[in-house]
Amino acid sequence: MISVQEATHTILESLPTLSTETCPLAEAHHRTLHQTVTADRDLPPYDRIMMDGIALHSSACPTSPDTKLTLKIVGHQPAGAHPQTLPNPQSCIEVATGAALPLGADTIIPVEEISTTETHATISPNTQITPGKYIHKQASDHPQGTNLLHPGTYLSAKEIAVAASAGYTKLQVATLPKVALISTGDELVPIEETPLPHQIRQSNAHTLAAALKSTNLGHPHIFHLPDEPEKLRREIQTLLPEHDLLIFSGGVSKGKKDYLPQIFHELHVEEKLHWVAQRPGKPLWYGTSPTNQPLFALPGNPLSTLTCFHRYILPALEKMAGRMSRPPLQIPLEGNFSFPPPLTCFLPVELIHTPEGTKAKPSPANNSGDYSGILGTSGFIEIPQHESEAQAGSAYPFYPW
Amino acid sequence: MISVQEATHTILESLPTLSTETCPLAEAHHRTLHQTVTADRDLPPYDRIMMDGIALHSSACPTSPDTKLTLKIVGHQPAGAHPQTLPNPQSCIEVATGAALPLGADTIIPVEEISTTETHATISPNTQITPGKYIHKQASDHPQGTNLLHPGTYLSAKEIAVAASAGYTKLQVATLPKVALISTGDELVPIEETPLPHQIRQSNAHTLAAALKSTNLGHPHIFHLPDEPEKLRREIQTLLPEHDLLIFSGGVSKGKKDYLPQIFHELHVEEKLHWVAQRPGKPLWYGTSPTNQPLFALPGNPLSTLTCFHRYILPALEKMAGRMSRPPLQIPLEGNFSFPPPLTCFLPVELIHTPEGTKAKPSPANNSGDYSGILGTSGFIEIPQHESEAQAGSAYPFYPW
Repeated sequence: MISVQEATHTILESLPTLSTETCPLAEAHHRTLHQTVTADRDLPPYDRIMMDGIALHSSACPTSPDTKLTLKIVGHQPAGAHPQTLPNPQSCIEVATGAALPLGADTIIPVEEISTTETHATISPNTQITPGKYIHKQASDHPQGTNLLHPGTYLSAKEIAVAASAGYTKLQVATLPKVALISTGDELVPIEETPLPHQIRQSNAHTLAAALKSTNLGHPHIFHLPDEPEKLRREIQTLLPEHDLLIFSGGVSKGKKDYLPQIFHELHVEEKLHWVAQRPGKPLWYGTSPTNQPLFALPGNPLSTLTCFHRYILPALEKMAGRMSRPPLQIPLEGNFSFPPPLTCFLPVELIHTPEGTKAKPSPANNSGDYSGILGTSGFIEIPQHESEAQAGSAYPFYPW
Repeated sequence: MISVQEATHTILESLPTLSTETCPLAEAHHRTLHQTVTADRDLPPYDRIMMDGIALHSSACPTSPDTKLTLKIVGHQPAGAHPQTLPNPQSCIEVATGAALPLGADTIIPVEEISTTETHATISPNTQITPGKYIHKQASDHPQGTNLLHPGTYLSAKEIAVAASAGYTKLQVATLPKVALISTGDELVPIEETPLPHQIRQSNAHTLAAALKSTNLGHPHIFHLPDEPEKLRREIQTLLPEHDLLIFSGGVSKGKKDYLPQIFHELHVEEKLHWVAQRPGKPLWYGTSPTNQPLFALPGNPLSTLTCFHRYILPALEKMAGRMSRPPLQIPLEGNFSFPPPLTCFLPVELIHTPEGTKAKPSPANNSGDYSGILGTSGFIEIPQHESEAQAGSAYPFYPW
């Protein structure tokens, strides 16, 4: 059996890279950028006023700080208008947040610190008049031509905003792979059917489809195949060329009907790994087809399926999209946790929000037979193979689900 | 000025509740459940085998622990088949993970602990034979009729799985509100235009649309209105009946052209709050229309807009959907941070993953003029109004963006 670290490495180093497509900005959230986004103008593009108030020249400063200063209002400078000109230091121009600084002015006094009549503004005594105050200087964030976003960036709202500001109505992003979600197992019946006493409904593929759609890392396509070698071989042969990545659940352990590894071999899919020193998910299988599609075969029990999906397949999809990796949160454990065997432990946890910080409270699923045991949990932490006693307060990588 | 806590309370207590609609299970991820999901059968529905191996009766136990035990294989019990019957304690049945326990058997020995011929299975010496081992007892998770999911539940992949297992192909969920995202400000031009030197492109509405779509809490509709009272009044009057919630950016501060509060008043929109003791976002305005639509007017500078959206509007949308609230993560601060004025501070932070846990490293935006200053951050923390010195190691609520 190989370690979780070796399995991770083997998977990540053998993945193909997805191609690039053009996406309208309005659809680009959650996608992975495949281009550079450059500032087409200085940021800010002009000396931008940051407060409603008056613009003046700092040489208007009174000789003594407790002297009132009254200036003639010679204009109003709204946002979106050409900058006006301040004729002399005895005058001021009313200005709005977002407006361009009037020519000849070098500081702003906010409305809170002045009183005005129709024609004049009086600055409260002891107001400090400092050149540059409340002025966001042109190019002070980034000069024109700066690369603002880089290939591999995950596009959240703020990156969309930066692209919008720089005039990008479309972005080059990684394509969304077609992902086949294939459950196997003769005990499984479709959701809409009433199972016989010894049957259960298919839930794994629906779970993975929901998890995949939430991340916007691929288009899921759901299939179910029976435990019949001939049919499995034929169907997998059909599915392979039509998908960028295939995820099986069930059929990879040591049972009589665990046909998948043998069928993959017959279809010239190269086995890269099988059996990982972890719980749950020990029978994990991974390989690549002759045309370089990754195939994951996850153990069929629900907790194994969901855990392996988050621990291995989401990072694989991010890698295929060329996305810069984002390390998991490190969350301290609430309470000790013992885990005897020398396996990496993926432990479901509930997040507890304490004044000292958020803690991960162990919430072990007593068995991995169904999803109802993990309903109260937020994800799982990863306790390394060599630790049989995880100590309260020690931090572990947390994977939300 | 009211406090952040008062503002939160005022907003949350005045919100309408969204109606309910039916949603196919395949589209229900990220939505809010508006019904109870009940176990239609015991969970597990039968005594479910958890390991590939053999089923036997524990009375087959050898007299001495180091004696080999050889049993006759009388059948094979695959998953999805009617349970077979064990004729006597000297026999065993090969079983697959997920299969129903053969009648007359009460324990499982996994394949790893046996050796087999065509006809017989031999159990390794010193194998402990315990009744109930590797059997997930019928109804041990939940008996038939148990309420598994409750109204108000956020539907992630695991809840979708539970609903699928219980035979639900559709779910009653909160409707998705129609959300108007309305930017104001004459300095703003559409993304595709080349701005004049004193103009900038509209980015706030696009940012909020991306943030909204990422959460699946509403359908965004983008508008831009000029700083003209007559036109503003007419357009808002048209937009009001067509949307469940309206979000304005800009036009609520103390500038000459900040017409919104007056126009809301003329349209009989009740002002519930204006000015909150926070930075950024002090001019935040909130009210409700005569037909009970919530209206938020956010200060137009980008950082204020994004901060107020995450701090006030996302929780409001969750409340409107009837979703059980999920408290924010509490993340310890990396380094001290001073913040002189008596305002609640929303501080952009970068998350640093240390062996002691994830820390929030202050990454203050020097001004709130654009989004490029927060590109390296993951969200913001909230430092309470009375704290002017936030200490390294103290934990604060973290809002991701």
